[in-house]
Amino acid sequence: MKLYLDCYVCILRQTLFACRQAGVDEEAQNEIFFRVMELLQEADAADPPPKIVTQVQKLIREKTGCEDPYYAVKNSSTALALTLYEDMKKLIESARDPFDTAVRLSIAGNIIDFGPSENFDLQASIQDVLAKPYAIDHVSELKSQIEQAGTILYLADNTGETVFDRLLIEQINKPVLYAVKEAPILNDATIEDALAAGIGEVAEIISSGARSPGTVLDYCSEEFLKLYDSADVIIAKGQGNFEALSNENKNIFFLLQTKCEILARDVGVPNKSIVAKGALVK
Amino acid sequence: MKLYLDCYVCILRQTLFACRQAGVDEEAQNEIFFRVMELLQEADAADPPPKIVTQVQKLIREKTGCEDPYYAVKNSSTALALTLYEDMKKLIESARDPFDTAVRLSIAGNIIDFGPSENFDLQASIQDVLAKPYAIDHVSELKSQIEQAGTILYLADNTGETVFDRLLIEQINKPVLYAVKEAPILNDATIEDALAAGIGEVAEIISSGARSPGTVLDYCSEEFLKLYDSADVIIAKGQGNFEALSNENKNIFFLLQTKCEILARDVGVPNKSIVAKGALVK
Repeated sequence: MKLYLDCYVCILRQTLFACRQAGVDEEAQNEIFFRVMELLQEADAADPPPKIVTQVQKLIREKTGCEDPYYAVKNSSTALALTLYEDMKKLIESARDPFDTAVRLSIAGNIIDFGPSENFDLQASIQDVLAKPYAIDHVSELKSQIEQAGTILYLADNTGETVFDRLLIEQINKPVLYAVKEAPILNDATIEDALAAGIGEVAEIISSGARSPGTVLDYCSEEFLKLYDSADVIIAKGQGNFEALSNENKNIFFLLQTKCEILARDVGVPNKSIVAKGALVK
Repeated sequence: MKLYLDCYVCILRQTLFACRQAGVDEEAQNEIFFRVMELLQEADAADPPPKIVTQVQKLIREKTGCEDPYYAVKNSSTALALTLYEDMKKLIESARDPFDTAVRLSIAGNIIDFGPSENFDLQASIQDVLAKPYAIDHVSELKSQIEQAGTILYLADNTGETVFDRLLIEQINKPVLYAVKEAPILNDATIEDALAAGIGEVAEIISSGARSPGTVLDYCSEEFLKLYDSADVIIAKGQGNFEALSNENKNIFFLLQTKCEILARDVGVPNKSIVAKGALVK
C-alpha cells in the first residue's frame, strides 16, 4: 500500500502521542513535530506507510532519548489481555467451530493498536467480532492450507494482541514460528512482549530483524527472509503487515480489522470490517 | 486560545476534507496539502486557530477555484435540522424549564460541525445533551442578563445549528442581532444559510464582516465591531467563537459542546462536555 495524504495526518498525530508518552516537554514536542513535517515533505509517496513510520519513530527516539515510548501502554495491554485469556479459551473449546472462533478472537485482539488511534474498547471489539460476518472470509482456505503445511510463519502485530494470537496458535496444533520485531516500534510486540503473553509455550519466537511497524522486507534480516521464503503458509496480523506485504505474491493470510478508511479502501472493504484474506485465494 | 500542535493535525485533516468536497483530483490535493504544511510551518503559534484556518481555507479556495466547498453538507444539515424543528419546539413548550431546554437544544445543535470531525450523530447529540449535566452551568446568569439587556448579540456558528439557535431566540423573546459570516468558510452559517433556517423570522441577521471560522475580531468590519462593543449581552456559539474570544473581557456567554481534547482542556472541562459559560461570571 502506498502512502496516502491521510497517512501524513495520521503520522503527525502518532508523533504527538509518542512524544507525550516519552514525556518530553512542549518545546521538544514542537521541535520534533516540525522535523517530522519536513521528513514527510521529503518522503517518497510510493513507499508503504510502515517505511516512513519507521523513519519517523527513529527520529522520535533520537530526539527524545526514549527507546520505547509505548512501554507503559504495551505492558498494560498484555496485562488486560491476560485477564481474558482463560474465558476466551473456554469460549473456543465450547464453540461449534473452535478454529473459526479462534481466528475471530485473534482478529478481535487486533483492536489493541496505538497506530491508527489512541483509544480502543477491547470488550466491545470481542463482542463485535464474534457476532459479525467477515468482509472477506478465507477461513476455510486458511484451515486447509494449515493442514497441508510443513512450516507455518506467524507475523505478529501488537503487544496484547499476542495473547489472542496464542489462542489461535493453540488451535493450529502444529509447529509455528512466531515473528516479532527486533526492537520496540510503536506498540508492536518484541520477543519480551511475546514471552509475557505466553507465546513461548506454544510457538518458537523469532525476530524479523526489523524495527518497523509491519514486516517491511527491506528492513528484515537475511535469516528471517530465508524463513519467510520457505514458509508454506504465512499468517500476517494487522494493518501494518497488510500495508507492507499486500503486493507480495506469497501464500499469506491477512487477519485484521480495518481501523482506517484508507486501508479499508485499499483492502476493498468498508471500514470497521473483519478480514481473513488469503493473498493467493481466487 | 493559542494554536496547539494538535490543531496542526486537525487543520491538515480539514484540508483534505475541503479539497475532496471541492472535487479536485489527487494531484491538486497533493499540491494544496503540501502548501498548507508550509503555511503551518510559518504560522504564529500565539494566534488563535481560527486565524490560521482562515488563511488555510482561503488558500484552498484559491487553489481549487471553489468558493464554498461545504455548500452541499451545509444544505443537507439545514434540511436535516428543519425536519426536527416542530418536534423540538413542542419539547421546549412542554418542558418544565423551557429556557433551559432551549439552551440545551442550541448546544445539541452545535454537534453539526465539519471542523473537528466529518461525522456526527444529531439525534444522539440531542438525547445526550438533554440528559446530561452542564460541565459549566451559567444558564441562570444568562437568563437574568438577558432579562436586563437592551441589546443582545448572538454570534452564530454552523449551518443547521442555526435551526437550533432559532428555537433559543424564540425563547429569548427580545430583539436579537444574529451575526453570521460575511462569506462561506467551513460549514459556518452565512446570511443565506441563516435565512434558510428561518432566522429571519425571529432576529435581525447581520454580517460580522469576516470570513473566518469563529468571530476573529481582527477580521471583522467596523460596523460589526460597533455593535459588538455596545451589546449588553453576547451569546457566542461553538468552539470557533470560544477560540477567538476566550481572552475577551466582555459579557459573553459561550454555549458549546467540547468536541476536541485540546479545546476542552482550554475551557477546563472534560472532552464531550456541554458548556454554558459566562466570561464575567465569578
